[in-house]
Amino acid sequence: MKYSFMYDKLKLIRGTSPLYKLNFNVDKKNIFMKRDDLIDFGIGGNKVRLLEYIVFKALKKNVEKLITFGSMHSNHVRITSSIANMLNLDCDIIILKDEAEDNILEGNQMLLDVYGCNVYYCDIKEATQYIDDHLQKQKDKRINYCFIPGGGHTSEGALGYVKAMHEIYTQCKEDSIHIDTIILPTGTGTTQAGIIYGCKLLNLDINVIGISIARSKQRCQKEIKCTLDELNKKFLKQYKIELEDINVVDKYLDHYGNITNSELTIIKKLINTDGIILDPIYNGKAFSVMTTMIQNNEVNKENILYINTGGLPNIFTRNFIERMGKVEYFNN
Amino acid sequence: MKYSFMYDKLKLIRGTSPLYKLNFNVDKKNIFMKRDDLIDFGIGGNKVRLLEYIVFKALKKNVEKLITFGSMHSNHVRITSSIANMLNLDCDIIILKDEAEDNILEGNQMLLDVYGCNVYYCDIKEATQYIDDHLQKQKDKRINYCFIPGGGHTSEGALGYVKAMHEIYTQCKEDSIHIDTIILPTGTGTTQAGIIYGCKLLNLDINVIGISIARSKQRCQKEIKCTLDELNKKFLKQYKIELEDINVVDKYLDHYGNITNSELTIIKKLINTDGIILDPIYNGKAFSVMTTMIQNNEVNKENILYINTGGLPNIFTRNFIERMGKVEYFNN
Repeated sequence: MKYSFMYDKLKLIRGTSPLYKLNFNVDKKNIFMKRDDLIDFGIGGNKVRLLEYIVFKALKKNVEKLITFGSMHSNHVRITSSIANMLNLDCDIIILKDEAEDNILEGNQMLLDVYGCNVYYCDIKEATQYIDDHLQKQKDKRINYCFIPGGGHTSEGALGYVKAMHEIYTQCKEDSIHIDTIILPTGTGTTQAGIIYGCKLLNLDINVIGISIARSKQRCQKEIKCTLDELNKKFLKQYKIELEDINVVDKYLDHYGNITNSELTIIKKLINTDGIILDPIYNGKAFSVMTTMIQNNEVNKENILYINTGGLPNIFTRNFIERMGKVEYFNN
Repeated sequence: MKYSFMYDKLKLIRGTSPLYKLNFNVDKKNIFMKRDDLIDFGIGGNKVRLLEYIVFKALKKNVEKLITFGSMHSNHVRITSSIANMLNLDCDIIILKDEAEDNILEGNQMLLDVYGCNVYYCDIKEATQYIDDHLQKQKDKRINYCFIPGGGHTSEGALGYVKAMHEIYTQCKEDSIHIDTIILPTGTGTTQAGIIYGCKLLNLDINVIGISIARSKQRCQKEIKCTLDELNKKFLKQYKIELEDINVVDKYLDHYGNITNSELTIIKKLINTDGIILDPIYNGKAFSVMTTMIQNNEVNKENILYINTGGLPNIFTRNFIERMGKVEYFNN
C-alpha cells in the first residue's frame, strides 16, 4: 500500500506549505502569504487538499474510475488525474471549451497526457447534456465510477481547508503572526467554505474574503452557505451563518480566464518584490483585486493572509508570457 | 530594504524544503528525496541556494549588472534573472545554442522575458569568443558588472550546499532518518562540492555520488576538487580529498539534453508512486541512472537520499510531454 489513511483522508501531502510575510506592500498593510502553490504533490495547489478527502470517500466504495470536468485552465482536473494515476484508477476528464478558445495544448491541459487519463472535449454550452450522457454510458457498462463535481465542489472537499485552517492557525501561533483577514480566489467556493468553517471551529474572528474569479457574488454565497450547512451536519454543530455574512467580492470581476493589464502589472510587482510568479487565471486575478481593494479602503484591517491556491502550470502559456514581456513595471 | 543579510548571503529562501521517504522503490532500498525543487523563490531549484551567496558577494562590490550564460534548459539563468529583477539590477543572459536546437520559446527560456533581462543568443561553438567580446563591451562602457560562470560554478555558490547539508542533517535527525548515500545530478559540480564539504564539516560518513548529466567523470572530478580546495581556504581547514574519492558516474551518460526512453519510463514510475514529476534534463536523467545503478548492484548501501535539484519549467516543453504521452508504464 503506497498511501496511509489518517483523519479519514488519503495522505498525499507531506509536510506543511510555507506561510510568511511578503515584501509586497500596499498602504502599509502587512500581507502574508500561505504558499499552497508549493504543496508537494502533483505540482501543488489547493485542489490536493480537497481531493485527499473526496477520493478517500470514493475508495471506500471501491470505485474503479474517477470522472470529473473543468475548463482548460483547471487545476482540479490535473490533480484528479494525478491521483487516479497514483491509485491505478481509470480516469475520464471532460474539458469544457468555449468555441472562442484556441486549441493549444499548454499549461494544465498539457499534463493530462502525462497522467494518462482519457480526455474528452465538449462545448461549454452543451456541458450538462454531455456529462449526463457520459455518465449514462458508464452505468450501461456497469462501471463503478465516482463522479466528482467541477472544482471538487463537495463538503468532503471543504474538509481539506477546515484542516488547512488548523495548519494556518498553528503556523501563525508558532511564528507569532496575527491575522485578522484572509483573502483568496473563489471559484466554486469550496476552499472558502472550508476556511470559514475552520475559523468557526477554532473560534477565530477572521474576516474571510473570497474574490470571485468567475461567478456572481450571489451564486458564490449560495454555494458556500450550502457547503457550510453540510459541514454543520458533519461536525454535529449548529453555527448560524447568514448569507450576507459570507464575504464574496465580484464587483471587479472580469470574464473567467481573461487577463487584464492591471493584473499583469500586479503579477510583475510581486515577482519584483518577492520572486513569486502567480498563475494568471486564479491568483493573479484575486491578488490584483486585493490590491485594488486595499487602495480603495475596502479592507479595513491591517494583517492580511493571502492564500496562494496554486496553478503554476498556467504560467507556461504563450498568451500570458507574451503579454508579461510587454508590461512595463518600474520599482519606485 | 526588501532582503536581509544573514551568514554572508542574500536571504531569498524562506523555510526548509521537504525531505521524506519515497514510495518509489528499487531492490528494497530506502529512497528519500530532498525536495529542493520546491524552494519557494523563482519556481525553485538548487540554483537559488548557490546564487544567494554569489550575488551577495557581487552586491558588496556595488555592481549594476549581472551577466551569465547557459543552455536553453538552464535553471541557473532563470534564477539569475529573477534575482536581478528583485534587486533592480540590469541583467544580460547569453543563451548558448546548438545549431540543431529548435527555436521554440518554452520551459526556462520562456520565463526570461517575464523577468525582463536582456537575452543574447550565441552558437555554442563560439561561446568563449562571444562572451569575451560581450564583457569587453561592458568594460568599454565602464559598466560595473558581475560575471557569473555558467551554472553558478564558484566556491561562493558551493557555500549554498555546505549550508543545505546542515539543513539536511537537522531534518534527518529530527525525523530519525539515517542516510548513508546521497545521489544528485551533477553539471558543473558546484552542488556536489558543497554537499561533500558539508559532510566533512559535519563529520558524516556519507557516500556522495554525482550523476553527470553533461561532462566526463574526469572533468567533473577536477572541477569539484578545485572547488573543495577553495572551500578549504574559506573555512581554514585542511581536509585531504583525493580526486579518486570524488564519486562521479558518467558511464550511463548520454548527450546533454537528450531524453531517453528509459528515463521517461522512470519519470512515469515516480509520478505513479509519488505524484512527483521530475524535470527531463537534469533530474529525470540522474534519478533514472540511480535506478539502473541500484539494479546493477552499484549502490552498496541501503539508505539513499536523492537531491531533487528542480527544473520544473523544463517539464512544460512539447518534446517531453508528447513523448511522455506515448510511454507505456504499468504498475505491477
